[in-house]
Amino acid sequence: MSTEEFCTHLTELHSKSLLNDNDTFLFDCDGVLWNFPQIFTGAIELLNYLTAQGKRLFFVTNNSTKTQDDYAKRFNDIGYNAKPEQIICTAWLTAQYLKSIKFAGKCFVLGMQSMKHELEREGITICGGIGADPLAPDANAVNTNQLEFDKDVDCVISALDLHISYIKILKAATYLNRPNVLFLATNDDASLPQSDETVMPGAGSILSSIVTASCRSPTILGKPHAPMFDAIRLAFPDVDPKRTVMIGDRVETDIAFGNRQGATTLLVFSGATSEKYLNTLKQQAEKHAIERDLLPNFCVK
Amino acid sequence: MSTEEFCTHLTELHSKSLLNDNDTFLFDCDGVLWNFPQIFTGAIELLNYLTAQGKRLFFVTNNSTKTQDDYAKRFNDIGYNAKPEQIICTAWLTAQYLKSIKFAGKCFVLGMQSMKHELEREGITICGGIGADPLAPDANAVNTNQLEFDKDVDCVISALDLHISYIKILKAATYLNRPNVLFLATNDDASLPQSDETVMPGAGSILSSIVTASCRSPTILGKPHAPMFDAIRLAFPDVDPKRTVMIGDRVETDIAFGNRQGATTLLVFSGATSEKYLNTLKQQAEKHAIERDLLPNFCVK
Repeated sequence: MSTEEFCTHLTELHSKSLLNDNDTFLFDCDGVLWNFPQIFTGAIELLNYLTAQGKRLFFVTNNSTKTQDDYAKRFNDIGYNAKPEQIICTAWLTAQYLKSIKFAGKCFVLGMQSMKHELEREGITICGGIGADPLAPDANAVNTNQLEFDKDVDCVISALDLHISYIKILKAATYLNRPNVLFLATNDDASLPQSDETVMPGAGSILSSIVTASCRSPTILGKPHAPMFDAIRLAFPDVDPKRTVMIGDRVETDIAFGNRQGATTLLVFSGATSEKYLNTLKQQAEKHAIERDLLPNFCVK
Repeated sequence: MSTEEFCTHLTELHSKSLLNDNDTFLFDCDGVLWNFPQIFTGAIELLNYLTAQGKRLFFVTNNSTKTQDDYAKRFNDIGYNAKPEQIICTAWLTAQYLKSIKFAGKCFVLGMQSMKHELEREGITICGGIGADPLAPDANAVNTNQLEFDKDVDCVISALDLHISYIKILKAATYLNRPNVLFLATNDDASLPQSDETVMPGAGSILSSIVTASCRSPTILGKPHAPMFDAIRLAFPDVDPKRTVMIGDRVETDIAFGNRQGATTLLVFSGATSEKYLNTLKQQAEKHAIERDLLPNFCVK
């Protein structure tokens, strides 16, 4: 499949060609397979069809609030027989990244129980940050003398944290003030896809507060950044980007991720990116010859 | 006083000239007069001397967690007889800004009780955001159906909020998703001056999380931005920037603020900006002819 083509509307002929020329299919989940609890029509059928054709499927999600096992269970509940190792979620990814750099220290983790589960499964020590740590409801100031800091923290990890608090940001920024402390972020999505009118802050929103307070920049692991693909290749060395399709709904994460890794990219209009927005990007790319990272090879309604 | 001079080390002769040529003195507080509870030697004596000489003094602080009355009481406690109207704090400033634009709607305010006090004193209605609003400590997800949103919110205000939470960021971002909702920030200081090794996140850290989640940019009221000087001039029309000295410890806020308003600026090395850092900035300005906003006219140890 030529990666010179871009934004081509997918026809039946293209679909056949995509199927013949590739053996690995990476799917984003939210906005592509479902807007939970609503599962998109035909999504599960497509996954089962591809699997029956002998294709290898991975589910590549920036969501850090669930483990591989959580996701596998969800897939099994809705009719696709997924194995945990098919789930490339950022909680698992963070553990794999630390393992790959032979990290042996302690982590302060702003995130949910999923992070604790995946990190501890790889023997990584967590000292604080997970769960609620609020200021007393009637407090009008912070007494830093009453706060406890672990002198052995070597790494601060910023994930989606529904229990984010001033004290937690303070602790993260204070640890990051030690020059040798590693700074990782699961991902930097600004918000989460929502079916109602609320704006759900993403991991990028939590991360911004820590970046601002600490004046430090993290290594970001999730899409569109390379560590996510590196982790797949480390676990499955025979995955060939040239014979891989990345299917997603967000150009900034999914499509940029696939393009940068040399995969064929397919954008679906069921989620974050509208056809109108894609057309704007396409016009900009044609006029200004800017980088084409955000443009998918194919798109489909 | 020529504003062509910059980074001149203050001598006794300069001091006399500053005193003769100016009638208004704007003081930043933290890092200039005190690192509370430690009051800097000579600070109160200087304030009393200037007042005895018939000079007009204002205390210009980005701190939004205290009211004019709170600050006046602090000054009185430590030996300077300050009137509340001499305190230009950002809680007061926010109320004055809304008054100046004849704002008559409802505000969602991420901030402390000081914000409520100053806004309500000007008859401005607050609907939510002040105080604790955490997710239940054992919760692993947000149920947006259980959240209440006020349909009449016209303005979101971001200040230093020690009770920041995911739910509060979510609410702020959701309100800001309404295109006509005004977005104000008291200030964007990344961190607060600290006497110990902790990094205390500033209002800018809280603000970053909301900016990221909402994809909107606020009007920022505090130093180095113009609304702070506008509020002084509105309340005291005879203040002449050409006969005003701004004394501060942080080049990015205090000195940039004074320079942009046409005041004479004096940097003290008792707080955020070191002599070494100032020298670096001076060399950069000389080499690259970049803007000289950050360079004070005078500096003093």
